Amino acid sequence: MTNALLRLLAVDHPIVQAPMAGTSSPAMAAEVSNAGGLGSLGLAAMGAEGARAAIAEFRDRSPRSLNVNVFCHATPKANPAIEAAWLDRLRPEFRRFDATPPASLRSLYTSFLADDAMLAVLAVAKPTVVSFHFGAPTEAQARALRQAGIVLVGTATSLDEGKKLALAGMQAIVAQGYEAGGHRGVFDPDGPDDRLTTFALTRVLAKALPVPVLAAGGIMDGAGIAAALRLGASAAQLGTAFVACPESLADAGHRAALMSDAANHTVMTRVISGRPARCLANRFTALAGGVQDGDVPRYPIAYDAGKQLDAAAKAKGEPGFGAQWAGQGAPMARALPAGRLVVELVAEMA
Amino acid sequence: MTNALLRLLAVDHPIVQAPMAGTSSPAMAAEVSNAGGLGSLGLAAMGAEGARAAIAEFRDRSPRSLNVNVFCHATPKANPAIEAAWLDRLRPEFRRFDATPPASLRSLYTSFLADDAMLAVLAVAKPTVVSFHFGAPTEAQARALRQAGIVLVGTATSLDEGKKLALAGMQAIVAQGYEAGGHRGVFDPDGPDDRLTTFALTRVLAKALPVPVLAAGGIMDGAGIAAALRLGASAAQLGTAFVACPESLADAGHRAALMSDAANHTVMTRVISGRPARCLANRFTALAGGVQDGDVPRYPIAYDAGKQLDAAAKAKGEPGFGAQWAGQGAPMARALPAGRLVVELVAEMA
Repeated sequence: MTNALLRLLAVDHPIVQAPMAGTSSPAMAAEVSNAGGLGSLGLAAMGAEGARAAIAEFRDRSPRSLNVNVFCHATPKANPAIEAAWLDRLRPEFRRFDATPPASLRSLYTSFLADDAMLAVLAVAKPTVVSFHFGAPTEAQARALRQAGIVLVGTATSLDEGKKLALAGMQAIVAQGYEAGGHRGVFDPDGPDDRLTTFALTRVLAKALPVPVLAAGGIMDGAGIAAALRLGASAAQLGTAFVACPESLADAGHRAALMSDAANHTVMTRVISGRPARCLANRFTALAGGVQDGDVPRYPIAYDAGKQLDAAAKAKGEPGFGAQWAGQGAPMARALPAGRLVVELVAEMA
Repeated sequence: MTNALLRLLAVDHPIVQAPMAGTSSPAMAAEVSNAGGLGSLGLAAMGAEGARAAIAEFRDRSPRSLNVNVFCHATPKANPAIEAAWLDRLRPEFRRFDATPPASLRSLYTSFLADDAMLAVLAVAKPTVVSFHFGAPTEAQARALRQAGIVLVGTATSLDEGKKLALAGMQAIVAQGYEAGGHRGVFDPDGPDDRLTTFALTRVLAKALPVPVLAAGGIMDGAGIAAALRLGASAAQLGTAFVACPESLADAGHRAALMSDAANHTVMTRVISGRPARCLANRFTALAGGVQDGDVPRYPIAYDAGKQLDAAAKAKGEPGFGAQWAGQGAPMARALPAGRLVVELVAEMA
């Protein structure tokens, strides 16, 4: 099959491997692209030099299209009182693993909105696609990337966000349903959220927006991709489907949970990173009960605590504090090589 | 098209009009069934005599299949302290409309689990299908209805509920996604809820259950029905799509909100009835902020307060306290006659 979006992306199949910062790898992206889908790299946690190296590694493995994803969150203001209270709240959890929380928290990731070095790397490396999460790039950034011949793709969780992204020059828009794993792309994590699902959001955006829509959230097999296309999407973006692939950087605890009955339960929570994200229900998500949104430090400051707690727990053999991102389709995850999975997905679509 | 479920239901098209207690009507159900879909009546608010009359009115209008729906909730225990506190909380809202809350609250609807008269009416009237919400019927009830030649259909919001319903003898199961309008069918409203969406739940249930699955939630047009079938459903159940039909009992305020920009925002809340239900965002749902689940009287005791508040508000021209049930597909609602809508849906599926 083909359509305007697939021609724009220069891919054979309507299958995008979701960028999944921290979980995707150049090997995964290359396997997907070599199989005719669109492989993706999540650059948010890498910094500009890491991004340059990752893109180069992809290029060593594949001559085909590549999507790289960056985060457009507002740079958080530190709030020492909230951060100290949060660390106090986590102190008993650290103590279970003979650890103590850090004295203070750092903001781990630079927003793309403030990352001139990343922009420069991308304008030179010229991946086929740059996609955005948590909002749109600045006008100047969008212009620079477009002038480099790069296709721009935004992520929307509502019609309002979709319209804003189209106005910002996005050439295609990912409709991210509430069931999607990992970080919810909502622009303002403290604003109202209608929690629109893949089914409703894809159909509404496909009818209302002037650019092609990619459906994301809960899509795990060829039947799901075909269903997304029937809803008006031009392609489907799958993340959780690729987490258990051998090319994934997911750790052993994440993989084991995903392939177990634990996959039947996911939770949308901001306790891990400071922004709403969907995770397999585990010991970390269980902490969310009783926590008010305002208790959690801003994204990604809270993530600094989350990662240190996970490291302390893992050091004692407890995997249950991992950021075990997964969508509601998790019970259908398969541990296949990424390229082989794409071949299967295409066969199942028929 | 046909399949095993459509043969079982004796219908031409994979389209079920959702029962929607208080909103569906014999005229609506008959129009849908006469057009080759499955028309449904929600009996929960009627009592046995009302049900007998409604089924008879359907029969006067259509010789075809009929689905009637009953509620299998646990009969609530009164809790005068919680109910009095709830009425105190609503007092300022009543006062805005020159009204006072009632001195106490009643449980408005008898659960089917305790309704021998309703069972007797159904066993005699023999609708094609009896479907169940909030749980399964008792073993004796299921046996009596099956012996009368009636097809039994359950409603599941999770794999666990789906398995229980299959074991209870349900011959088909509605996979009700989180995006669906009206009352969420979850068996235990106070238990954990994974909020599975139509996309994820339909696919998981279709793969795991031994009986056919109907998809419900966010499905508004032929594209949505076709997508649901691709996910493995044997039919789609549409509620919100029929709310604006002339045969609907929805009031003017509900219709006006549904056909306006207000349709872009729905909220899952228990403040209206005591159980989680999805409603257009309005003045009533806005009260949910700051309300803890335990503050709200049990279903359907809370509904007594909700209906009286709505009546007081409406009497002063304020429609915003209505139980304006709608799913996330609400922006796609159409004000077409129900039979005409079925014809359009079938055409759109092609």
